[in-house]
Amino acid sequence: MMILTLTTDFGVSSPYVAAMKGVLLSVCPDVTVVDITHAIMPQDMLQAGRVLRDTVGYFPDGTLHVAVVDPGVGSERKILYAEIGSQRFLVPDNGLLTPLEQEPERCFYVENRSLWRREVSSTFHGRDIFAPVAGWLALGGNPEELGSVCRECVRLPLEKPRVTAEEITGRVVSVDTFGNLATNLPGQILEKRATVWLENRRIGTLSGTYADRESGEWVAIRGSNGFLEIAVVNGSAADAMKKPAIGLPVRVVRREEPGNS
Amino acid sequence: MMILTLTTDFGVSSPYVAAMKGVLLSVCPDVTVVDITHAIMPQDMLQAGRVLRDTVGYFPDGTLHVAVVDPGVGSERKILYAEIGSQRFLVPDNGLLTPLEQEPERCFYVENRSLWRREVSSTFHGRDIFAPVAGWLALGGNPEELGSVCRECVRLPLEKPRVTAEEITGRVVSVDTFGNLATNLPGQILEKRATVWLENRRIGTLSGTYADRESGEWVAIRGSNGFLEIAVVNGSAADAMKKPAIGLPVRVVRREEPGNS
Amino acid sequence: MMILTLTTDFGVSSPYVAAMKGVLLSVCPDVTVVDITHAIMPQDMLQAGRVLRDTVGYFPDGTLHVAVVDPGVGSERKILYAEIGSQRFLVPDNGLLTPLEQEPERCFYVENRSLWRREVSSTFHGRDIFAPVAGWLALGGNPEELGSVCRECVRLPLEKPRVTAEEITGRVVSVDTFGNLATNLPGQILEKRATVWLENRRIGTLSGTYADRESGEWVAIRGSNGFLEIAVVNGSAADAMKKPAIGLPVRVVRREEPGNS
Repeated sequence: MMILTLTTDFGVSSPYVAAMKGVLLSVCPDVTVVDITHAIMPQDMLQAGRVLRDTVGYFPDGTLHVAVVDPGVGSERKILYAEIGSQRFLVPDNGLLTPLEQEPERCFYVENRSLWRREVSSTFHGRDIFAPVAGWLALGGNPEELGSVCRECVRLPLEKPRVTAEEITGRVVSVDTFGNLATNLPGQILEKRATVWLENRRIGTLSGTYADRESGEWVAIRGSNGFLEIAVVNGSAADAMKKPAIGLPVRVVRREEPGNS
Repeated sequence: MMILTLTTDFGVSSPYVAAMKGVLLSVCPDVTVVDITHAIMPQDMLQAGRVLRDTVGYFPDGTLHVAVVDPGVGSERKILYAEIGSQRFLVPDNGLLTPLEQEPERCFYVENRSLWRREVSSTFHGRDIFAPVAGWLALGGNPEELGSVCRECVRLPLEKPRVTAEEITGRVVSVDTFGNLATNLPGQILEKRATVWLENRRIGTLSGTYADRESGEWVAIRGSNGFLEIAVVNGSAADAMKKPAIGLPVRVVRREEPGNS
Repeated sequence: MMILTLTTDFGVSSPYVAAMKGVLLSVCPDVTVVDITHAIMPQDMLQAGRVLRDTVGYFPDGTLHVAVVDPGVGSERKILYAEIGSQRFLVPDNGLLTPLEQEPERCFYVENRSLWRREVSSTFHGRDIFAPVAGWLALGGNPEELGSVCRECVRLPLEKPRVTAEEITGRVVSVDTFGNLATNLPGQILEKRATVWLENRRIGTLSGTYADRESGEWVAIRGSNGFLEIAVVNGSAADAMKKPAIGLPVRVVRREEPGNS
């Protein structure tokens, strides 16, 4: 059975998601739908893109990922079908896929109105365009029939880590339920003996697992998404910060200053 | 595969929903279950009914919609099976379906105890009656075997918009994740040149899409459910109000008073 | 189709759950997944165990219940496959199953690394071990191939009700969406004429249903999980307490003191 995922900013309790599923199942009754999350911050395309980046690789080849975080609904923004690696995407052309940092192998605009709902509202393209098109793709529709080839999709500026001889600087980009702080520092660029700082707080060198430190201690670790993560063992780093953590600078000092270890 | 939806006030994190699904799958393992929402305000039958009104039409014909918002559980209130248009419903007979404003074509009381769980708790009919009966219907059970014909189901009073020669007055009835305010004013009764007021705030004439106004501006629009909606473009109208929005009066003035546009 | 449930402390909006489902569906595409809850309080194994205790009996025989509440992830804690009654479990060996108060009929450690993902992170065994092993079991894998027999799994201390000639004393252990207070006092040990006290508040004798009392009144009832529950009819007992309810003592006085009824 075809697998399809949904990622939106509709909220975890929103009936809008069910309306999309109703339309989808009307077109293609035999589809397995997995909700990735519906709690993207309203209109935060980059958060949606980071969630997809961290999640889609675990799905079977050919899975169709539908993401509706769409501040431009009703405007002239286009809708994209994109194939990246073994995964397929249906998203607004608003830069949402930027965090994946990969060019699509194939990419089409979704223009063929015969695949949309007959009546298209100006505020809910998730239900009236994305859902029926997703259902048609799940039935095996040929993406070439969607519309014209997209040669360059919209990209958003991505803040990259700043790398010098002494240190690498990035930021906290998200916080999970446990209060763990995910950063934009890829694990593979981190040296084992480097020291991690969250703002002015010295976290220490990279640990292999939470269990390397005692309960209540801060720990820097390679997170499950491959990026540097800062946590409090069996506690919440986000709560311990006593201020919003997203955006805080994170430094990885390659050679510790003397007298500071 | 039979499609079945669930709408409850159990809360998005409640294991009660899973208990219902367990019973349902025990009776009918081959059913596609879609959660509409489990975040209905506790015991708010009319909210549940409005959510169903706005959602069920997007599901395939014959879908069974099970809604458990049931302040009268354990009392003498009855349970209904109803067919309205192409959709089917299993609900407490407490007025929940009032917002659909349609008489059922067929309607039966759910009285046949041989279809219930053997042990019926006094507090959780969702699990002990609704779920096994829904499973039996999903298997193809004949609704006539459920119980006696219901000739008149319970209706709740619905506040209707007040219409005069000069204006139409209604209320904000719900708020979505984006802070958009849904009203009880049907889009089709609104004139294009009429002016919309939220309490003492002049919103302006009806827009075709959010994109007609700038970011941060108020907009009045026909919402995706067909009713008048008031929003702040790329923002939250609910937050901007700085007080609870539900219940606030919304006026649509057919001819603007001079000096006020 | 094989049925599998998920219970975690990842949060209702966490994409971690979807990563697990992606891995699971990659191994076994034909499985029905039911979310029991993802809102277990972070690392509260006993809450997870109580939720399973109250829910798994409603699922078909042979259902596999995967629960990931796992403060010891990355340490030496083991992972268990257990068969209890007609249900099957895949859980960390950290005492999570203690509230079921039943010895497994069969129990194996999950040690066979050929069934895990090739790369195992130190922080997310749900995705890298639990999900692929669950998929393999859903395909019909023989549990004996998982690893060595577990002769004694970890148990956590469970606070039992204190029973004297005059009274039974327990505690509030959880609160549901409606603000109803679930206790650890099994319904079957309660006498019908006994009087229930929540801290210093006299609730009265056991009622058969919420409908026995008026709206707004307190009621003591046998809850849908079989344990004593304290509620406010059509209201919230948790809100009425004006302080955290979990942990509050609940007394059931077998013979009411004179002058107190």
